[in-house]
Amino acid sequence: MNVRVSALRSYLESICGSRNVSDDPEVLYPYGSDQTQHLHFPFDMLVKPGTPEEVSQILRYCSSNGIPVTPRGGGSGVTGGALPVQGGVVLSMERMNRILTVNNVDGYVIAEAGVLTADLCKEVEEYDLYLPVAPSSMGFSMIGGNVATNAGSIRSCKYGTTAQQVLNLEVVLPDGSIIWTGANVRKNATGLNPTQLFAGSEGTLGVITKVVYRLIPKPRAEVLLLAGFRTLEDAVNMVAALKMSGLSPSAAELICDNALQFTAAYLGGRQPLVQEGIHTHLLIEFQEPDDVLMHHRLEAASALLQQHGCAEVLVGSTAAEKERLTRLRYAIGEAMTSFGTTYRDVDACVPLSGLLPYIAAVTDICRRWQVPLICFGHALDGNLHTMLLLNSQASLQEQEALDAAATEIYTYVTSHGGVLSGEHGIGWLQRKYLPLQFDEKRLSFSRHIKSLIDPANIMNPGKSVSTF
Amino acid sequence: MNVRVSALRSYLESICGSRNVSDDPEVLYPYGSDQTQHLHFPFDMLVKPGTPEEVSQILRYCSSNGIPVTPRGGGSGVTGGALPVQGGVVLSMERMNRILTVNNVDGYVIAEAGVLTADLCKEVEEYDLYLPVAPSSMGFSMIGGNVATNAGSIRSCKYGTTAQQVLNLEVVLPDGSIIWTGANVRKNATGLNPTQLFAGSEGTLGVITKVVYRLIPKPRAEVLLLAGFRTLEDAVNMVAALKMSGLSPSAAELICDNALQFTAAYLGGRQPLVQEGIHTHLLIEFQEPDDVLMHHRLEAASALLQQHGCAEVLVGSTAAEKERLTRLRYAIGEAMTSFGTTYRDVDACVPLSGLLPYIAAVTDICRRWQVPLICFGHALDGNLHTMLLLNSQASLQEQEALDAAATEIYTYVTSHGGVLSGEHGIGWLQRKYLPLQFDEKRLSFSRHIKSLIDPANIMNPGKSVSTF
Repeated sequence: MNVRVSALRSYLESICGSRNVSDDPEVLYPYGSDQTQHLHFPFDMLVKPGTPEEVSQILRYCSSNGIPVTPRGGGSGVTGGALPVQGGVVLSMERMNRILTVNNVDGYVIAEAGVLTADLCKEVEEYDLYLPVAPSSMGFSMIGGNVATNAGSIRSCKYGTTAQQVLNLEVVLPDGSIIWTGANVRKNATGLNPTQLFAGSEGTLGVITKVVYRLIPKPRAEVLLLAGFRTLEDAVNMVAALKMSGLSPSAAELICDNALQFTAAYLGGRQPLVQEGIHTHLLIEFQEPDDVLMHHRLEAASALLQQHGCAEVLVGSTAAEKERLTRLRYAIGEAMTSFGTTYRDVDACVPLSGLLPYIAAVTDICRRWQVPLICFGHALDGNLHTMLLLNSQASLQEQEALDAAATEIYTYVTSHGGVLSGEHGIGWLQRKYLPLQFDEKRLSFSRHIKSLIDPANIMNPGKSVSTF
Repeated sequence: MNVRVSALRSYLESICGSRNVSDDPEVLYPYGSDQTQHLHFPFDMLVKPGTPEEVSQILRYCSSNGIPVTPRGGGSGVTGGALPVQGGVVLSMERMNRILTVNNVDGYVIAEAGVLTADLCKEVEEYDLYLPVAPSSMGFSMIGGNVATNAGSIRSCKYGTTAQQVLNLEVVLPDGSIIWTGANVRKNATGLNPTQLFAGSEGTLGVITKVVYRLIPKPRAEVLLLAGFRTLEDAVNMVAALKMSGLSPSAAELICDNALQFTAAYLGGRQPLVQEGIHTHLLIEFQEPDDVLMHHRLEAASALLQQHGCAEVLVGSTAAEKERLTRLRYAIGEAMTSFGTTYRDVDACVPLSGLLPYIAAVTDICRRWQVPLICFGHALDGNLHTMLLLNSQASLQEQEALDAAATEIYTYVTSHGGVLSGEHGIGWLQRKYLPLQFDEKRLSFSRHIKSLIDPANIMNPGKSVSTF
């Protein structure tokens, strides 16, 4: 940082007004953390711009003065993407929270990056439209952050991740330029299109200020199936069959025995299909335009389930039934942290054909390092949440064991056609594993692009491929 | 070019063998043209590398010596992307034509860039898989070229364009680096992902040597509907209703009255639904996993057609029926060129809500400039082929009128939320219109990326955003 903090504050106040700038430690404190373990980093100044032009002036100033800028949405990231690890400025998008246009003929929505994910999803449904972006953090995550991490969800298997919903982005580059990356039409073969480069860039290339999402007609029918299997093998084979069937489920969540038993014990009472002889759950969801199509899907899915040794299946159509069937799945996170336990969420993605060997490998690795393991997640995409648990009073040795186990898992993944992260991004926590996935040429290509767009290296330094 | 042609030939021969290098004018001649009007450009040397490593050595040499390189697939482009406008080297991918892996559990195929599109589509169907990339040139276009132009097709409305099918690319950069851009799994939130930057880059950033396409289960049912409408308005309203219905047709081709009458006259005889009172055709296709779903789609589509004033509808299920119903649509191109006429294909894409006003505007523009007009294409995507016809004996004045009309159309498109090209790319022919769509900052951002990756500006100079 080449300027004094007081000069920085004066400048930011002149741009955004004094009420939108702060260096009060109490105000700053919550912005020093996100949802990543218990990490916290101090920083110098919080600023809440209200327009792209304000963002532009801030970035130009910070570029000129070598001030690190950490863009922040809802702070829902779990790999530390929003942690101000280098201090400097935290640029919060919370004031840029307007939904600008919902177009129900052309099927898109334009919104500012600070809109809450759930708010946007709800708004477009008023127009009979649907935005299939549903991270579990959608109640407090912001759409700019969803795009920046290329967030996934249980529904990615049908609709793709956040990046696939993005038509166009307004981005402020580190030099202050404000550009639109693409266009608001789906077919576009005009010049280089950097839209998908910014999706997943984790704040390292600029600040996303507006998002144009493509929308689809709202599915009018949604049904859940909870299927219990005797073995993991049967369940995974069912997932592969589902994938090849063309039935296109909107979710196919696998809950391995460890997650099942652990969460059932936490919840207590009697949970659906938690019973002797059932060792794996599969939660399958269908979203269809109408009930006739849904009826057909369910018949076909039932036949598949029978063929693949499903022990028992429950159907949920009403909100209450669905709540009951999904309760265990959505209580896993709570169960894991209920006793002060923290966890490392390895959200690696492997080819579906490698899912069973992957689960066997992580089970073996965790057994060897004596790290408690919970496995569940987006099976059809080969994207499980492999949770390595850590007691709150863990010794340094236990912490090192977890780290060693994680490294072994990432090494396994990247040598078996998988990727380090399916939906959480690299952020701060996983950057050291990048060389496992990328060779030197590929990594330097990414860093080359980063340094071209951000020569002063102010944007989220130390995150993802960016260095400091 | 900083070396003598003889030195260039010797070097290329040392890399690829003398049988894969030529400067014989007769051998070179066909490589000086693609499908773009009657344009032809001479160049110095043809090389046909057999491996990415050979491509790497060629690009490194050409970078060092300032030799322009025009990568070439099947030469099916219609905007001049493969024209060697600066001479130098034409790098033909025709020898790199192996299909390497079809994986029917994980759902992807890995193939070299010189594989013919139709060959790849056919091969994956042997595995009950489907690649929804179907440009009309698929019989002779190559997959590397499809990716480089982000080719579309009648099926883009359901499946997206070529870019959306790409999981991963092997690319040789101008400095000779060979990188994989992404990964062979669909969910990937790991570092910057430049895959979609190369899709649509029209050979300006490097040479695509391998393509990994995501595959989907092969639809087992496919049915065509040919619907006749009294008015263009009814037909376009039907398209909008289809889009909002969630029925997800795999094609919705609009054939305007001018295309209808022109082609019917060319074909002669009696053509389906070419009759009094019918002034617009809509060709609707559905692809579904099975007949039960198809039956339901067709019922819903029939109801929609009735509601939207469809005068008559014909159904095609067998190959012979489909051939009959699509005959006129696929004869339009032939009809246009049958008398030595050439055409300018304006493949602009506009928001669907702006499609009727767009057609009215181009009709007015062409009337004023006295340019014959044929309109048809991918209505659901707002992506029509607006064909401006030019007689083979056209005077300079007529050619200038066509040019003026095209400029007016592009100006209209870009000031109404549309893009210059929906699926053909910018290439050589349309580059002068880029400033209509992009402001200075956005254009210089693209050129900045281009010059970062290709500092010697050897890759397809003069095409798309690249200058010379």
